[in-house]
Amino acid sequence: MFNLNDKYEENFVVTNEVYVGFVQLFKDKNPLHTNGQFAVDKGFKGKVMHGNILNGFLSYFIGECLPSKNVVIHSQYIQFNHAVYLNDELQFNATIIGVYPSVNAVEFKYDFTNKEVKKVAKGKFQIGLLQ
Amino acid sequence: MFNLNDKYEENFVVTNEVYVGFVQLFKDKNPLHTNGQFAVDKGFKGKVMHGNILNGFLSYFIGECLPSKNVVIHSQYIQFNHAVYLNDELQFNATIIGVYPSVNAVEFKYDFTNKEVKKVAKGKFQIGLLQ
Repeated sequence: MFNLNDKYEENFVVTNEVYVGFVQLFKDKNPLHTNGQFAVDKGFKGKVMHGNILNGFLSYFIGECLPSKNVVIHSQYIQFNHAVYLNDELQFNATIIGVYPSVNAVEFKYDFTNKEVKKVAKGKFQIGLLQ
Repeated sequence: MFNLNDKYEENFVVTNEVYVGFVQLFKDKNPLHTNGQFAVDKGFKGKVMHGNILNGFLSYFIGECLPSKNVVIHSQYIQFNHAVYLNDELQFNATIIGVYPSVNAVEFKYDFTNKEVKKVAKGKFQIGLLQ
């Protein structure tokens, strides 16, 4: 079911609904995320979306898009390389880089790429397979 | 403002509002998170809360609780060691483990501990200081 080098692709959009919902849920109103002029003054094109919105997309991918629902996350790493802005369309790619049957674990690498073909974030995660 | 070994503490509760809000926002309805009987059959006490809810709490901590708002996340790592359940009260502790003025970066280690004094999750993150 999980094989080395298997590849997955999903598409995500940081809609206003996701952005506003994230702010309401977690109360992170840092000016970089909520004050366009502040963000521009710091060298960005506009309000920067919360990096942890991408971790929410990862949750959806792991919970809903894999060939088994019997999974649990062991660990996640994410590195943010470029800013994500409101309404950015992100292509998500993941590849299995390790399958460990003796410990029921599978390791993936992944990245999120925007329409300018910039890898805005990348990382790795490991899941456990529930018996 | 940021000094080696500085310590921070916050408290978070995985309320029903946070849990339901997270499911609505990111659509991760994996049965482990939404079907209590499924979770019990897999050896858990009940529905397991999404690990990425803790990453949302991290977003709040970094964006709102540090001595400067001029911060951006470079990278985050999280390891999930024990299940988090609905209404769990979590104590969050973070410690600065690296201050790098030449690259305007600060590194933290952190953990979330539940009322049974289990470290449910732990990890590291690095922030950049915006000029």
